[in-house]
Amino acid sequence: MNIFIAEIKDNKAVLTEEESWHCARVLRKKAGENIRLIDGKGSFYDATIEVVNDKKTTAHISAGPFQQKIRPYTLHLAIAPTKNIDRIEWMIEKAVEIGIDEISFVQCKNSERTVLKKDRILKIVESAVKQSLQAFIPKVNELKPLKNFLSDVTADQKLIAHCFESQRQNIKEISFEGKTTLVLIGPEGDFTEEEVNESKKHNFRSLSLGENRLRTETAGLYVCQAASLLS
Amino acid sequence: MNIFIAEIKDNKAVLTEEESWHCARVLRKKAGENIRLIDGKGSFYDATIEVVNDKKTTAHISAGPFQQKIRPYTLHLAIAPTKNIDRIEWMIEKAVEIGIDEISFVQCKNSERTVLKKDRILKIVESAVKQSLQAFIPKVNELKPLKNFLSDVTADQKLIAHCFESQRQNIKEISFEGKTTLVLIGPEGDFTEEEVNESKKHNFRSLSLGENRLRTETAGLYVCQAASLLS
Repeated sequence: MNIFIAEIKDNKAVLTEEESWHCARVLRKKAGENIRLIDGKGSFYDATIEVVNDKKTTAHISAGPFQQKIRPYTLHLAIAPTKNIDRIEWMIEKAVEIGIDEISFVQCKNSERTVLKKDRILKIVESAVKQSLQAFIPKVNELKPLKNFLSDVTADQKLIAHCFESQRQNIKEISFEGKTTLVLIGPEGDFTEEEVNESKKHNFRSLSLGENRLRTETAGLYVCQAASLLS
Repeated sequence: MNIFIAEIKDNKAVLTEEESWHCARVLRKKAGENIRLIDGKGSFYDATIEVVNDKKTTAHISAGPFQQKIRPYTLHLAIAPTKNIDRIEWMIEKAVEIGIDEISFVQCKNSERTVLKKDRILKIVESAVKQSLQAFIPKVNELKPLKNFLSDVTADQKLIAHCFESQRQNIKEISFEGKTTLVLIGPEGDFTEEEVNESKKHNFRSLSLGENRLRTETAGLYVCQAASLLS
């Protein structure tokens, strides 16, 4: 059954304009048809279409809410966007499929990309949520300079993955369960030593992702899989 | 330092024609320059270029072999290629970055792709091996019908990931360490029940990759990350 994102109030659902267009124009749904809805906050609903058109589609809730099974961990990934935006976009798609709660983008000294279309990322996130049959839409934040991000962000544990030879904890030893973990992934060319030191001032611990040198986007996804597999 | 794939005999190295071209034309290396070589079997070497041209480049081994750290597991991934070949290609790149020993492609009832350019896959594998600073080149096999694959393949444990409600072991409970594990991933639209039953005759155990519905290529990569993280 097709899944649509909607705003739910009592037993009424209003699809977003984009979802209305998809429902009316692409899938050519008619009034009276049953659809499945998600509120983006973790709940599924069954509903029957009342009015369908490409600007505004409304539905009547027939069953639900059904809660998406809650993950035993909360993961916030902060990553420096790659020069080739496709690489970050597929990582986002996969990260959402595996399960992630919040995604931030940071601007580092070695970053080759200085702009990021948040709306485009959000579209990818929403379609991955629906494709993987989830009801929770991860939070996506705007690209901001690393320095500002470091001073603003909070989490139960804050980790920074880098390639400098130093006291780094292997990701296999990290416990993700029952806490909010923020993992920071650097750009192609890695963080600078200054950036790593700056993160230390904000209580970030150094993280190693193992023997092989991973691309930025591979590292980001590896962290998502680790949180999923190690909790 | 640039890494090249070469055939090593005693203290002589001969680069493949493709690597010679890359060395001579792209990187414009000259005789006397030092390069790093891999034999594709797990060993690194330092070498000095003797003759460099775009057809044949030879080098003199100055140090090595240095062995790539051996992974505590052996993973053979068999997957049904996706309709959109880009999705399989990036999965291959990432699987190699994370670490994999053998890759097979199977033709299933629901497969939308019936051809696969093995040479193109091999190029992606080799460049990912070099990019991630490894010395071992995974084996890549031709696409073959699932039935033939099932009857030909051997491994210490054989697992099939599918979405049918049945007695499935969660991947978190799989022990990868010290053994050869074969994991079979189905096409978009999954295996048919007949295919799953056929695999059972060949002692495949059913595998679950968790709550979320993963795309074929995400599932393939998730298995590689699991073997790496759970061993």
